Amino acid sequence: MSKFLSSRLKNLSAYTPGEQPRDRKYIKLNTNESPYPPSPEVIEAVDCQQVGMLNLYPDPTCKILKEKLAERYGVTPEMIFVSNGSDDILNFAFMAFCDREKGMAYCDITYGFYDVFAQLHGVPSEIIPLKEDFTVDVDRFAECGTNVVIANPNAPTGIALPLCDIERVARANRDSVVIVDEAYVDFGAESAVGLLVENENMLIVRTFSKSRSMAGARLGFAIGAPDLIADLELIKYSTNPYDINRLTQIAGAAAIDSDSYYFENADRIIETREYTTKRLRALGFEVIDSKANFVFARHPLFDGEKLYCRLRSEGILVRHFKGERIKQYLRITVGLPAEMEVLCETLEKILNERG
Amino acid sequence: MSKFLSSRLKNLSAYTPGEQPRDRKYIKLNTNESPYPPSPEVIEAVDCQQVGMLNLYPDPTCKILKEKLAERYGVTPEMIFVSNGSDDILNFAFMAFCDREKGMAYCDITYGFYDVFAQLHGVPSEIIPLKEDFTVDVDRFAECGTNVVIANPNAPTGIALPLCDIERVARANRDSVVIVDEAYVDFGAESAVGLLVENENMLIVRTFSKSRSMAGARLGFAIGAPDLIADLELIKYSTNPYDINRLTQIAGAAAIDSDSYYFENADRIIETREYTTKRLRALGFEVIDSKANFVFARHPLFDGEKLYCRLRSEGILVRHFKGERIKQYLRITVGLPAEMEVLCETLEKILNERG
Repeated sequence: MSKFLSSRLKNLSAYTPGEQPRDRKYIKLNTNESPYPPSPEVIEAVDCQQVGMLNLYPDPTCKILKEKLAERYGVTPEMIFVSNGSDDILNFAFMAFCDREKGMAYCDITYGFYDVFAQLHGVPSEIIPLKEDFTVDVDRFAECGTNVVIANPNAPTGIALPLCDIERVARANRDSVVIVDEAYVDFGAESAVGLLVENENMLIVRTFSKSRSMAGARLGFAIGAPDLIADLELIKYSTNPYDINRLTQIAGAAAIDSDSYYFENADRIIETREYTTKRLRALGFEVIDSKANFVFARHPLFDGEKLYCRLRSEGILVRHFKGERIKQYLRITVGLPAEMEVLCETLEKILNERG
Repeated sequence: MSKFLSSRLKNLSAYTPGEQPRDRKYIKLNTNESPYPPSPEVIEAVDCQQVGMLNLYPDPTCKILKEKLAERYGVTPEMIFVSNGSDDILNFAFMAFCDREKGMAYCDITYGFYDVFAQLHGVPSEIIPLKEDFTVDVDRFAECGTNVVIANPNAPTGIALPLCDIERVARANRDSVVIVDEAYVDFGAESAVGLLVENENMLIVRTFSKSRSMAGARLGFAIGAPDLIADLELIKYSTNPYDINRLTQIAGAAAIDSDSYYFENADRIIETREYTTKRLRALGFEVIDSKANFVFARHPLFDGEKLYCRLRSEGILVRHFKGERIKQYLRITVGLPAEMEVLCETLEKILNERG
């Protein structure tokens, strides 16, 4: 930290992304990437001709991408916002809709970045604890009277909220924006897109990083009423209008054109998740029913951090969080069936060592 | 604008990027792109194997890119920051070093985005007018006592400031950050990188968009003291840690490895700029001596906006700004020699119509 850093940021704790160590080859189950590559159409679309045009700026309006997404989700292009990953969109939403008076409500256990955005922008946060069973306390969100961001399914729990609950929160907070972060929705939860018509205060945030195998390309999008989208555009054009590079725009368009490929992969991931859940339970783990591409699990006899470290030493990376309520859990990305097999066998070995 | 937009943003005017019309094929001399494609090494590096790995997140630390840039500019990797275009870096610098008490000083005629950042973040701005001859008023910057951002060469004038003036501003404002925006420095101006050792309050911002033919890939970098760079990292990790996608990281690394290609192109652009300047002057234009990849010119007998419109109708896009002091000028990107030939011939035709 320099002496020039604004005093308002001196206590800011940044987000900690999942580790990306390079000391050896790991089975990487810690950042919720898809284990499947982009579709052949994407790989074909990003060709040397396109790379050869990188001297030209990308289309800042992302016209083609917006049109394709609009068609895909049954809305108009004016209801689509695209940006350099969904983190960017969440950041823009905090900038657009919050200030020192109007804050943001979110769960105590959820995507850790919401709290970073609130700190960064000096926004009052209302932190609503998950209930004992890790489900969202819908009653409290319904009466919070401020902006809301809910991840559905939630991370790192993987628990999905029924649409009727999402709708209740949106209806109860008509003077606020209700953001539904659907990063993981394609793995078995229901999207709230159909609720947008009657809930113009709702903003749905999505990403190409998970189900569409494009974490490395950085592409997120939001769906909402045109005037909410216009607010996000105002922020984008006041920070970085060319924020999505040419190749990501091309890859994104090709990905939408080959959506069936991705939905087959999502089905595979769901199947692997269910199999993994069963295997982990057979090993004595408590595994929360997940609708995401990860599972959240703890073993009654093994400390979460120690288990994480042991797996790491065995070449398997999973994610461990230090928060009091979840420090006994591991968040494990659903990888390829063979990777999950190695995980389960390794866990069995570790558990037996103690036995 | 929605009713949910924070009241502090109601009067925010976003940046207007150069137009990208699609109604016909234009000679595009309006956004200061390089007319030359990326190097063969870049085109080779971004191959289908790399595209096939887009399911994996990019390295958020950008280790390889930072190491290559550090070696190239004779500094340590801790002195390098990279981000999704230099606009992002400038935005982060406003966020890190400014607040309601501490503002930013910049010229009245300069890159229009500085003023947008100041508005967006509610930062007091000290706008220091260029002198009558469009040179920077170094005396006023030396006594401003606040953070400073100076584009060198300046845009849209193209005028470069000698390093002794940059150093004077940095020394005179030891309690503030002095940002030197060197987006166009490779076209004939001197970089302030050598001044960093003795001026730890100086931050140099660079881009791959101009001399390195990568506007479409979005890659900017900054060079400065490690603690200033750490402040920018804090903002990055609090907004979008994975902000540079995989392919841009690969393209950027390959571009540095083939720097001689880009410097030959920069020499070509300088040559074309000098030729264009001579031709325009022969047509009666007043052309400011430029050290950038554009020229800034006006004709004493022709209105700037009308000339811009006539060129547009002839299929040539240049940039026109509406600001009072510069509304008679055109900013013309230096394109290929053949494009500048068409420009000059078209201007000659337009001028003769009036004769």
